[in-house]
Order: sequence, then structure tokens, then C-alpha cells
Amino acid sequence: MITVVLISHTPDPERTIAAAARVSASPVGAVELLDKLTPDRVDKLIERLISSGHMSVFEHASFTFAIEGISRVTSHQLVRHRLASYTQQSQRYVSLRDFKYITPASVNARSELAGRYHEMVRAAHRLYLEMLDAGIPAEDARYVLPNAAETRLVMTMNARELIHACSLRLCLRAQWEIVELFEHIKAEVEKVAPRLAAELKPKCYRLGYCDETESCGVFPTRAELGERPGGST
Amino acid sequence: MITVVLISHTPDPERTIAAAARVSASPVGAVELLDKLTPDRVDKLIERLISSGHMSVFEHASFTFAIEGISRVTSHQLVRHRLASYTQQSQRYVSLRDFKYITPASVNARSELAGRYHEMVRAAHRLYLEMLDAGIPAEDARYVLPNAAETRLVMTMNARELIHACSLRLCLRAQWEIVELFEHIKAEVEKVAPRLAAELKPKCYRLGYCDETESCGVFPTRAELGERPGGST
Amino acid sequence: MITVVLISHTPDPERTIAAAARVSASPVGAVELLDKLTPDRVDKLIERLISSGHMSVFEHASFTFAIEGISRVTSHQLVRHRLASYTQQSQRYVSLRDFKYITPASVNARSELAGRYHEMVRAAHRLYLEMLDAGIPAEDARYVLPNAAETRLVMTMNARELIHACSLRLCLRAQWEIVELFEHIKAEVEKVAPRLAAELKPKCYRLGYCDETESCGVFPTRAELGERPGGST
Amino acid sequence: MITVVLISHTPDPERTIAAAARVSASPVGAVELLDKLTPDRVDKLIERLISSGHMSVFEHASFTFAIEGISRVTSHQLVRHRLASYTQQSQRYVSLRDFKYITPASVNARSELAGRYHEMVRAAHRLYLEMLDAGIPAEDARYVLPNAAETRLVMTMNARELIHACSLRLCLRAQWEIVELFEHIKAEVEKVAPRLAAELKPKCYRLGYCDETESCGVFPTRAELGERPGGST
Repeated sequence: MITVVLISHTPDPERTIAAAARVSASPVGAVELLDKLTPDRVDKLIERLISSGHMSVFEHASFTFAIEGISRVTSHQLVRHRLASYTQQSQRYVSLRDFKYITPASVNARSELAGRYHEMVRAAHRLYLEMLDAGIPAEDARYVLPNAAETRLVMTMNARELIHACSLRLCLRAQWEIVELFEHIKAEVEKVAPRLAAELKPKCYRLGYCDETESCGVFPTRAELGERPGGST
Repeated sequence: MITVVLISHTPDPERTIAAAARVSASPVGAVELLDKLTPDRVDKLIERLISSGHMSVFEHASFTFAIEGISRVTSHQLVRHRLASYTQQSQRYVSLRDFKYITPASVNARSELAGRYHEMVRAAHRLYLEMLDAGIPAEDARYVLPNAAETRLVMTMNARELIHACSLRLCLRAQWEIVELFEHIKAEVEKVAPRLAAELKPKCYRLGYCDETESCGVFPTRAELGERPGGST
Repeated sequence: MITVVLISHTPDPERTIAAAARVSASPVGAVELLDKLTPDRVDKLIERLISSGHMSVFEHASFTFAIEGISRVTSHQLVRHRLASYTQQSQRYVSLRDFKYITPASVNARSELAGRYHEMVRAAHRLYLEMLDAGIPAEDARYVLPNAAETRLVMTMNARELIHACSLRLCLRAQWEIVELFEHIKAEVEKVAPRLAAELKPKCYRLGYCDETESCGVFPTRAELGERPGGST
Repeated sequence: MITVVLISHTPDPERTIAAAARVSASPVGAVELLDKLTPDRVDKLIERLISSGHMSVFEHASFTFAIEGISRVTSHQLVRHRLASYTQQSQRYVSLRDFKYITPASVNARSELAGRYHEMVRAAHRLYLEMLDAGIPAEDARYVLPNAAETRLVMTMNARELIHACSLRLCLRAQWEIVELFEHIKAEVEKVAPRLAAELKPKCYRLGYCDETESCGVFPTRAELGERPGGST
């Protein structure tokens, strides 16, 4: 089961972003700007920054999450977002005696297959333990562990990259486990920065159409729209 | 005059770094680790991370500074550190009617030259104002402004990049103005993270020698040491 | 006068990108894929990658440019693109005895102002030379030099970042000098990768509308369109 | 079995790096510098850049590798190097009917364990195929596949990051499979850039000591040296 806890973040993240943005076009400095910004002004500034694509100021607020209960399938996808910082539990240095793993819903829905899945995964873990006991290093024994094996990590991501990652990973064409992970991440951000969290949404909500080959149904594809916006140069 | 104000930062930055580091080799999660870490344990962990070169965990703490009173010479050098976020006051959108500029000490020490320097810089600014009044856009009028012109910006940098940038910019072979800027940055970090601030130091303190062509005298160069450590493969 | 020379680049950049893209969804490897790709297939793949927003594969081709004759105004803007590599001529180590500078067309169009601009810039340079001769270090004497001073640099940028940078810098709301720089860059890419160069265009051509406050006229703003696509969540 | 093929690279990488480096401190431009550089001068410049830590110019040369026959253990480690570009074969879109996997030497050395390892891995793959045939999507069926499963990818890395990654991954404390991968990478670079390849070496060769907790024996640790260089501030 995925758990995500926001363990640290830039205090007052939306006001920090708004104050930084004002510095660009203002004759006064950031300290003064920070003092003067009302919550309402902050909201309006964030709305304007988003709609004009001025995303770099969103880098001034960052968020650190403790993430647990995701599979190695998902951690491998997650760390492909390079503009973020990760510290992951090592399968080299930590022996996974207390083994947990993820089962896809599509497998669980098929009781006969599910039974064999659970059996196989547990058998792999038993062999892992035997190899450890026989003196095989954990870093080698883990080759037999399945992709399903749970991992945990700490991730720090700034608001700009959160907006970008959510645009890809909240898309229903992404894999269900990473969608679920980013829903948890969004829920955590919502507690401390609701205006910002409103911008954590799939790319189609921003584009007005689906750019995948096949749409999930929320927005039509460009082919279905009959034209590509701005397609001709 | 340079002023640097730390306007925001990851709360409890050293403990956040230490907890993230523990996740890598621990069977328990970050939330539990955060709770258990005593200040003394945090210090020891940071010492060990530095000495073994495990720098990536230092990315989990970031710092946002309001920087004012630096020249465009120095802002141009500063933004070359790409692993950080900057929002700078625009000379395109802000008309610099209230003009401030930097004068190098080497110029100020020579009264005749200094007089002509001040005169020249002010004459350039007067022409800038006249061009504005004649309808030249600020973005074009600024071509006449000197490198000495003051600028301000907001910078967010994580602790790993702060350590790296200070290793280069606190070196006395760097230009005096950026050395002074990073001394201010270090002083600000010191107020909230003294253990971390102790790692903000020139590269020679870490290397044990000077890798510049000529040493400032604090450490000998490798040529002076008579050998290059590990030089032969 | 701006000159841009493509001094090096990934050979056969479009085919390299296409082959890398195919690896993702193919059971065969990159070497075999490279061999099989016809020019026509490469073009179709690039079209599909762009329209579906699969931009990461464009990072496999990179381009190295020698850039000369731009002002420090523009080099300061340019190096803000952090996902690229720059080596710039140093005003610390190179004494600018042979001085060149940029004059904005808006200034040149006003003969009286232009005369005073040229005079001021040259006077600043004369004082610079006198300071050098009086023993002031070049790194300090340069504080008197104007933003207009020419600089040169080597820049390496991959195709993904070229597409992104051009989307911002070929926009007519960007400053004329950096627009001109990226037109030169695009012309150089065109010689070796015409299909890719066709993707180097302002963001409005991709969005189908202008996201600036005021449009240059090529595309209407969203306000003018009467609606924001996908605006409501 | 790991295979690494250098499918593309900046032509004449060492001369490109050297010419870019010269731009920084030279009054002439990159095109002229490129013409004048003799092979001997290139070698001397690279030597000097390395010894003085001026690493940024090494970013101007990049290398694209087709990598096959590594486990998902190793690809997960590899993509943690964020300053590089990766396109990996997808386990979501490619059904792994032709299954290959890696077996650690430590397991192969123990015939009884090895037999059970091979059996387990193959049984996992058989269940994977049955799940596919029963209509489970490949992206879900893969949860049962082991870490040992082979993957392939295309990686582009510039020379600066190659030097950094090799300093960590050619260290004998890194896991054997990624050490082997980087030995292949180094061998490929050697064919086209031997001077550069000489800089692809474990960090201890550069430091003159081992900064791991326990040394492999090539260099003593700092504790064994009896002192930490530059340790006191």
C-alpha cells in the first residue's frame, strides 16, 4: 500500500513563488514584496504565471516526500524524472527479510492466476533468504526478487517539476501504480498549498486535447478534433 | 553594497538531510528516522556523508536568498551555476531611474581614476535616461549602461550545490565581488544550519592543496608539493 | 554582427533520434534499428514524436556552435538556458583592446541619439584602456564597459533544448538581438538536419495561440480567442 | 552478456573540447582555434584542464551508446546519473517472449543454488507468458519478472559526466555488473578518444586515497593514511 508523507517543504510556498515572480518586473526587492503580498494577490499572480507559461519561478518552492510501498517497477519510472532528488532504500545494503510486494489489480481479479502469482513471488523471496543464509551477498541474491518488490525512498521535487511530472503521470495512459503515487503526492501538496495543487493535473487539462494515440475519453485527440492546432508553419 | 537575506529554506535542513541519508541503508522509513535523530547524531552523519563524498542527500535541503546590490558582472557569473533557480530583475521591463552601481576597490584606491570612473558611469546613466525620455525602449537604452550597474535577484540553491559553488567562489582566485557575495550567503546559512555552513569553504580546504596555477598562499599548489596525488594510472 | 558557426554535431542527428525512439517499443536493439531506418521513416517518426510530445529522445543529438558578435545583454539572457553547455570569452583574462559593440536599431534610427551613444560607448572603452595601462586588473576595469560590449562563446545544446529555447526566443516578444541569434542557430541546424530545423519555431506555432499579454499579430491571444483551452479542472 | 556499441559521438571530441577551452582566455574565436590545434597541443590542454579541475568544457563532447544485456538491477542504478539521456526498452509496450536474464557469478559458483536460481527465474518467466496469454497486460504481468531480467537502452552522456560516472562506477566497491558496464563504455570511448579515455578511472586514482569505509587495496583509506587532507578549517 502506497503511503506518501510530506516531511518537509519550503514554508509558505505560494507566497515565496509569487514574491520571486514580482522581483522580475518590480523596482523593489524580494523582502519588501514578501511583506506586501496578500493571499488574494498571491492567487492571482499564480494564475497569471501559469497562463503565460512563466514556469521558472515555481522552482523556488520545493517539497520533500517520504514514499513507501511502491514497487521497483514504479521507482524505476519515478527516478526518470531527472530534475528532482532521490534517496532510495538500497537492495545492496538492506536485506529484505520482512518482504512486501505489490499485486496489480488485473492479476488480483483473476483468482487462479492471482494464487500462482502470490506463490511465485513468495517462492522467489524464500530462495532470496536461502541465498542470504548461504552467504550470497544481498546485492546478488536480489537478482531473483521480482519487480513487484516494495521499495521506499525520499524524494525532493520543486513545484515546477511537480507540475510537469503530474501532467504526465496523472494521465490515465500512465501506469496505474504511478498514477496512484502522484495522486498521493498531490493530496499531500493540497494540505499546504491548495492553489498550487490545483495545477497538478494531467496534460490534457492544460492542452485542451489528448496527445496520446488513444484518448481515455476525458478529452478528444487532435485527430478526433479534426485538426492540429498551429500545425502548419 | 551587497545584501543577502535568506527569505526561505527547508525547515530543519540538517535533520532532513540526515534522515534522507539513513533511508538508504536502513530497514525503517524516513518518518520514523526523522523522529529518532538527535542533534548529535545529525552532526556525525553529516560529517560522515561529507568525508565519504555521498553528496546527493544534500540536495534535500534548499535555500532561497534575496540578493541585492551586486553588479551585472557578478550576476552573469552567478547564473552560470546551472543547478539552481534564479529570478532576476529585468532591465527590459524595469526602467532604472534610481541608479546604483558598484565600484571596484582597486579603482576607488586611485583617486584620479576613481573620479573619472564615477563621472563616466553617471554620464552613461544620464544618456540612458535621455534615451528613455526620447522613447527608446528600456530594453535598448540599457545597452549603454555599464557592467557596474546594480541588479537584484532571488536565488534558490540546494545544499549540495551551495557546497560546490562555495568551493569555487570562496576561493581567493575568484573575483572579489562574487567572493563577497558567497561570504554573505554563507553567513545567512550559518544562522539556520551551522554544521552545514562549516562545509561552505574553498576547494583547497577539501583537497589539501591549491589546484589553481598560482596559490593565494593558504595551501601550496601540487607543483609546490612536488607531486600530484594519484597522478599515475 | 552576429556570426554563428556549427562547429560540431552528432552525425546524422535525425536518424540517431529516430533509432533511439524505436528502442523504447521494439524487441530489437539500436544498432539493427539504425541500419534499417530509411530517410522517409525517420521523417515520419520525428513527426510522430513531436505531435505526441515524446521529447526526451531529442536529447540524443547535440549541436556545438561558435557564437560571435553578440552583446553581453544577450549572452546574459542566453546562459539562463541551463540545459546546455557554455564556454564564454572571459572579461577577466582577456583584455578587450580591440573593442566591438552592438548598437540597437532603435538607437541607430535616431541620428542625434546614435551619435551620443557611439561617443559614450567609445569614451567608456577609452577609460577602460587607460585603467588597464594604469595597472587596474582587466577584471576590474571592465566594470566601466557597457552592456553593448561584444562577447563570444561556444555553446553545446541538444535538440530537445534547441526546440524549447527556440519556442521562447524566436517569439517576437523576445528581444530582437536574441531572436536574431536563434535565427542564425536555426539556419545552421537547417544545413544538417532540415526536418529537425522545421521544429525550431515560436511557441505560438505549437500552441495555436499567443500566451503573451499582447500578441505580435501572428496568432490571437487566448483572451482574444474568447476562451482558455482546458481552463476548468 | 553486456554489449556496448558507441553508435554516435561528437566528431573529433578531444579537439572540440580543447578549442572550446581556448575560447575562454583567447582573443580569437573558436573556428580559428579549431584549425590551429595540433594533436600534441590538444593532449597538453586536456591534461591541464583536468589537473586544474576546469571540467565544464568537457560537456562539449557527447557520446551515444547502445547498451544491451544488462539487468534491471543495473539499469535502475544507471539512470540515477541524471546528467545524461536515456531511452530504455519498455516492459510496458514490449512483451518479453524471448527472455534473457543475468546470473551473478557468486550464484553461478554454487551449483546447487545456481540450479534453483535458474529454475526460479524461468518459472517466473513462464508465469509471465501465461498471464500474457490470459489477457493480463504486459505492464502488469511484468511484476512477476525478476530483477535479473535483461533490458536494453540508448544512453547519451557527455565527457564531463562520463568522467564523473566512471569515478564512481569503476570503483571496485560499486556492484560488479555496473563496473563491467562502465569498463565496456570506457573501451568504446578509447577507440575514438584515447586521451579522454585515460581520464575514465576510479575516484581513488584522482584523490590519491580511498574514500570508502573499506579499501579494495589499491589505495589506503584516509584513516589508514593517518590523516584527512585539509580536514581542519
